[in-house]
Amino acid sequence: MEYRKIKDQDKDEESAGNLEISRGKPNSAVLGGLSGGSPQWKRKSMVTLALTILTSSQAILIVWSKRAGKYEYSVTTANFLVETLKCALSLLALAKIWRTEGVTEDNRLNTTVDEVIVYPIPAALYLVKNLLQYYIFAYVDAPGYQILKNLNIISTGVLYRIILKKRLSDIEWAAFILLCAGCTTAQLTSNSDHVLQTPLYGWVMAIVMALLSGFAGVYTEAIIKKRPQRNINVQNFYLYVFGMIFNAIAIVIQDFDEVANKGFFHGYSSVTVVMIVNHALSGIAVSMVMKYADNIVKVYSTSVAMLLTAIVSVFLFGFHLSLAFFLGATVVSVSVYLQKVGKPQR
Amino acid sequence: MEYRKIKDQDKDEESAGNLEISRGKPNSAVLGGLSGGSPQWKRKSMVTLALTILTSSQAILIVWSKRAGKYEYSVTTANFLVETLKCALSLLALAKIWRTEGVTEDNRLNTTVDEVIVYPIPAALYLVKNLLQYYIFAYVDAPGYQILKNLNIISTGVLYRIILKKRLSDIEWAAFILLCAGCTTAQLTSNSDHVLQTPLYGWVMAIVMALLSGFAGVYTEAIIKKRPQRNINVQNFYLYVFGMIFNAIAIVIQDFDEVANKGFFHGYSSVTVVMIVNHALSGIAVSMVMKYADNIVKVYSTSVAMLLTAIVSVFLFGFHLSLAFFLGATVVSVSVYLQKVGKPQR
Repeated sequence: MEYRKIKDQDKDEESAGNLEISRGKPNSAVLGGLSGGSPQWKRKSMVTLALTILTSSQAILIVWSKRAGKYEYSVTTANFLVETLKCALSLLALAKIWRTEGVTEDNRLNTTVDEVIVYPIPAALYLVKNLLQYYIFAYVDAPGYQILKNLNIISTGVLYRIILKKRLSDIEWAAFILLCAGCTTAQLTSNSDHVLQTPLYGWVMAIVMALLSGFAGVYTEAIIKKRPQRNINVQNFYLYVFGMIFNAIAIVIQDFDEVANKGFFHGYSSVTVVMIVNHALSGIAVSMVMKYADNIVKVYSTSVAMLLTAIVSVFLFGFHLSLAFFLGATVVSVSVYLQKVGKPQR
Repeated sequence: MEYRKIKDQDKDEESAGNLEISRGKPNSAVLGGLSGGSPQWKRKSMVTLALTILTSSQAILIVWSKRAGKYEYSVTTANFLVETLKCALSLLALAKIWRTEGVTEDNRLNTTVDEVIVYPIPAALYLVKNLLQYYIFAYVDAPGYQILKNLNIISTGVLYRIILKKRLSDIEWAAFILLCAGCTTAQLTSNSDHVLQTPLYGWVMAIVMALLSGFAGVYTEAIIKKRPQRNINVQNFYLYVFGMIFNAIAIVIQDFDEVANKGFFHGYSSVTVVMIVNHALSGIAVSMVMKYADNIVKVYSTSVAMLLTAIVSVFLFGFHLSLAFFLGATVVSVSVYLQKVGKPQR
């Protein structure tokens, strides 16, 4: 088990109700309620950029930690600490807001059953997905799994359409298919063809996992956007509290013996700590993108991050970029362009 | 030297003036002058389908002939015979038209210097390109050359824009880039990365060859469309006569000793004959596409043919399709879709 695991979980840690939200249109209540009313596009760009950079550095840290040697820590404990840190950071941000703006209806922690009842759902979905992950490796190897994970792009698009009831234009759908094909192409290696030998059962599991992950992401967006006036840090706090609870359950299910025998922090190093901090910040950036942009922006942001990672790795680790990478990067770039021009007037 | 060579030459055997033609709009003069005035789109679809099928079977014949053994015939003599056959077929078609419709201003062979002066240019460009082809293999291996040949797609688009002064919409340009990336992706093999080590001189030659090939194609379209009322068989006759002349020059330059010592038909077999017939018919189909459609349709048609070939080869030769092929085919399909929806109103 490696750091890669916590990456899978965090990247999409969000989702909730079943409501229509006008994508791309500024919400004056939200804008008014947060840090000085800067234009909505500026905030949207900032959180998107933060997510892209954090996701890129995440992958680079994974490579770095691998090079530094294998770490035999429990992934579930690291995931739990990521949730705890996110929770603590949300509380810190809230404390600062309470000091400067005072406690209001929108930023107080007090809540109702009606508000909080949906928050455990994304965390529960990720728990199921992470448990399934242990079984899919019986059918697919790790590089094959990386390739199959690109199905998340399609599942997010489909569920975004269904759950949030947003229309995507034909050009946007074309762009989404290209994003999936381009990302997969960029990741092709000489062994990638193995994935075509995946048995039917493996495909079904990969599709179920993509749907779980996509559903959790879209559901988090619905939860967060259902109450646009609610402070994002309060919303995050509740998301992360349930994240902590469900990751505690995961520790018990998957790593109870190991933690009981070797201790909670066995195998931790300074790299582990840096990665936990990075994952926590990425997780918060994902929430912010859900609040001020949407899942479509998130998918594009993390896909572009994947390409940036590869380019940075050339300089940091002397990686060689393959022809497939250049072709995939070209297709992803065209996809980003089409997504931009294909947006219907909303 | 193999059959692959004559494929290179024929596929783009066409080109002309410097005039504006309304792409996609039916020309009543052309329609009236030929086989009963069926709607323009029907004829356009038919010639496009013919080109796609002939190009696919061309590539399949290449595989078949390779399996049957190596043929040590002179490629230049085969090219010469292809031109001769095309010339003969054009004359046959004309003879039939003269019998049924009588000799008219539009279908008589009589010509003026002003009309005929431009016809040698495409053939001359192909001669230069084919001679260059011998040198590029000093810098690139054969599979690498197949990959670099996809630059033809981009060069055709750029020259189509410049020479024929046609506007392509932004979506159409995006589709063109995707077509190039998709075709290259579909052709990726485990050795494809070698092409990235191509020295600068090899890249320059590949780009020059792509420009020559694209220019010849676009120039042929300009020649053919400059006189829309002129019978296509007359136009073909003059194109192919100069094709014969320039291929005769190629025999002298490249294979004079071999032909003098072993004879003109040395190494020919029944497969060679089938391939020459196929190439001749493909060449005529390309001319028809230039007359009734355009270079953009031609590029799409031959690219789709490449994918069809691979699929048919699975059944005929037990080929395995790679993941890269599926990804490339997906990107090409999206490109075809975008090209269709992205067409500006002309």
